[in-house]
Amino acid sequence: MHLEEVDTPALLIDLDPFERNIARLAGAVAGTGVRLRPHAKTHKCAAIALRQMAAGAVGICCQKVSEAEALVYGGVPDVLISNQVVGARKIARLMALASQARIAVCADDASNVAALDAAAATAGLRLPVLVEVNVGMERCGVEPGDPVLALAGLIAASRGLHFAGLQAYHGSAQHVRDYAERRAAVARAAALLRPTVELLRRNGLNPESITGSGTGTYAFEASSGLWNELQCGSYVFMDADYLKNRQEDGAPGSAFESSLFVYATVMSRPTRDRAILDAGLKALSVDSGLPRLADVAGAEYVGASDEHGKVMLREPGLDLPLGSKVRLIPGHCDPTVNLYDWYVCYRGDRVEAVWPVTARGAVL
Amino acid sequence: MHLEEVDTPALLIDLDPFERNIARLAGAVAGTGVRLRPHAKTHKCAAIALRQMAAGAVGICCQKVSEAEALVYGGVPDVLISNQVVGARKIARLMALASQARIAVCADDASNVAALDAAAATAGLRLPVLVEVNVGMERCGVEPGDPVLALAGLIAASRGLHFAGLQAYHGSAQHVRDYAERRAAVARAAALLRPTVELLRRNGLNPESITGSGTGTYAFEASSGLWNELQCGSYVFMDADYLKNRQEDGAPGSAFESSLFVYATVMSRPTRDRAILDAGLKALSVDSGLPRLADVAGAEYVGASDEHGKVMLREPGLDLPLGSKVRLIPGHCDPTVNLYDWYVCYRGDRVEAVWPVTARGAVL
Repeated sequence: MHLEEVDTPALLIDLDPFERNIARLAGAVAGTGVRLRPHAKTHKCAAIALRQMAAGAVGICCQKVSEAEALVYGGVPDVLISNQVVGARKIARLMALASQARIAVCADDASNVAALDAAAATAGLRLPVLVEVNVGMERCGVEPGDPVLALAGLIAASRGLHFAGLQAYHGSAQHVRDYAERRAAVARAAALLRPTVELLRRNGLNPESITGSGTGTYAFEASSGLWNELQCGSYVFMDADYLKNRQEDGAPGSAFESSLFVYATVMSRPTRDRAILDAGLKALSVDSGLPRLADVAGAEYVGASDEHGKVMLREPGLDLPLGSKVRLIPGHCDPTVNLYDWYVCYRGDRVEAVWPVTARGAVL
Repeated sequence: MHLEEVDTPALLIDLDPFERNIARLAGAVAGTGVRLRPHAKTHKCAAIALRQMAAGAVGICCQKVSEAEALVYGGVPDVLISNQVVGARKIARLMALASQARIAVCADDASNVAALDAAAATAGLRLPVLVEVNVGMERCGVEPGDPVLALAGLIAASRGLHFAGLQAYHGSAQHVRDYAERRAAVARAAALLRPTVELLRRNGLNPESITGSGTGTYAFEASSGLWNELQCGSYVFMDADYLKNRQEDGAPGSAFESSLFVYATVMSRPTRDRAILDAGLKALSVDSGLPRLADVAGAEYVGASDEHGKVMLREPGLDLPLGSKVRLIPGHCDPTVNLYDWYVCYRGDRVEAVWPVTARGAVL
């Protein structure tokens, strides 16, 4: 099937840049002693997770128990839930899954640690638990220093749990536009983390994994001598928001290439300078900005309503006839992927595969 | 099952206000000679569409062929696709559906009319087609006056098509905050539409349906003497954005009540004034603003990341312990519903039903 024949809106993966992205990060990490554990919250797809592991990743991370289920049942043997799991129902699902694959989880609360311990002990498990540390994002996580030591000690003393390390992700640093400021944000995170690690070691609690980082900052964590595991997710696809980050030379862009697109059709041409696409809020997420047209210079996607995208044609001679199809680079890849049941994967102008978005809607 | 036992995030319908909303709009329209054709782009659910029809709606509208399929196969006998259907594959699906139920569609382009005509003639159908008129939204639709006459004439002269009226929806008027300005926006739309209708009638092309309107403005269209069909959608659920509209007395709010909620759990309490919920960008759409906490005064949802919602507790004594559950009023109901496979419907504190979001992800 030719790409042109795919009906729209559709979620596309351009396999050539997608494969180069996987190889590029694997190559950057190989031989450094730092492990790669890509984040599946981006792609929610077991087929992609298995490709990342085939390229050298030690395992996968995700955010939800239901995502972990989709990955494990899709063949992924090692999953870190880089998030808290709270509530009896979810903890019961977590333990059922942990008896089938290597599952680890994060914690930032003593009562949650007690609940995990009781469930793990009942299930006859010794569940690896990482302490989530707040290294600057001000979201989840205990504060660095003594609070980490206290919670790590509690985990280590629990019959059903094993203290497995630290989750230290600085999410808000990922999209800091300026290269030096981005590096400085990770340096501040490292300055919070380093004495905490030393404190743990002095108290006989070695954090085996110090895990975190993302597509925007991985080079800084990797060279810090502190983090030993990277959780990059967006690098496989990239999005319009990440492409606004400036590199070391000051130019916006990335070593990774756009490989994820929303395919859309021009469904109305009411005026010479206005083209309406069939892809709006239900076909792409605009939380981090509007999509970009990948292949049409002089045209701008200026507004999304539920089922429509409004494109203004800025160059007089530009033609975008009714029925023509365009590729959009979504503003934010993760929530856009979560709108679709399938990826249509192509190479050149040929559709090569269709992969299910295994964990679409898996929010539990 | 008690509501409290429902795991989160979950999409909830509170059945009492939901049923009152359906009855309230049906009551407002009954006896006025204006028909009600609720928009299913809001709820994407055949079970809800059938309830709206049982309350007096003449049919349902939706935006996509794949939505119409989900509704028809769910038992809805009369569907207007209030949108253009462009491309051979979609038109083929449209004709297959039109042989099984009463289906109408909109058009704003002569070449699209020709494509619809050819397909309808081949299928042995006479498909009702409405001309979409741009009455102020500047999205799809031909300009009022002669362009409408020309396209209506083309439809009426087509072997496979029937000129069924005008689609005249002023979407951007729905969320104008001030009551008088909202009324004025519809008055301007009516001033564009009225001479167009007269022009059509003078030329022997009576528009049987003049259809449009929405939850924010329906009273104005209904009393205009021009529109004879209303397409309100959000009224069944309401959302935080619609609740910002001011009523005639200047106060924000609506005659309709919030009946749609995202149920979320407090999954981290890292500080006294910060609570993290398990519902972020994959559990609710923030395109029209952040959600509101329905039941907790003094707490504000201040930021959404992919899987987390950050809530600041503004009142010192406020308690929102780890594991507690809260109801969120989504910023925008339509794209939020599109994230879920199921509605959990409750009355009081008891779960009464689970309805599938029949057309979730139906973007084709």
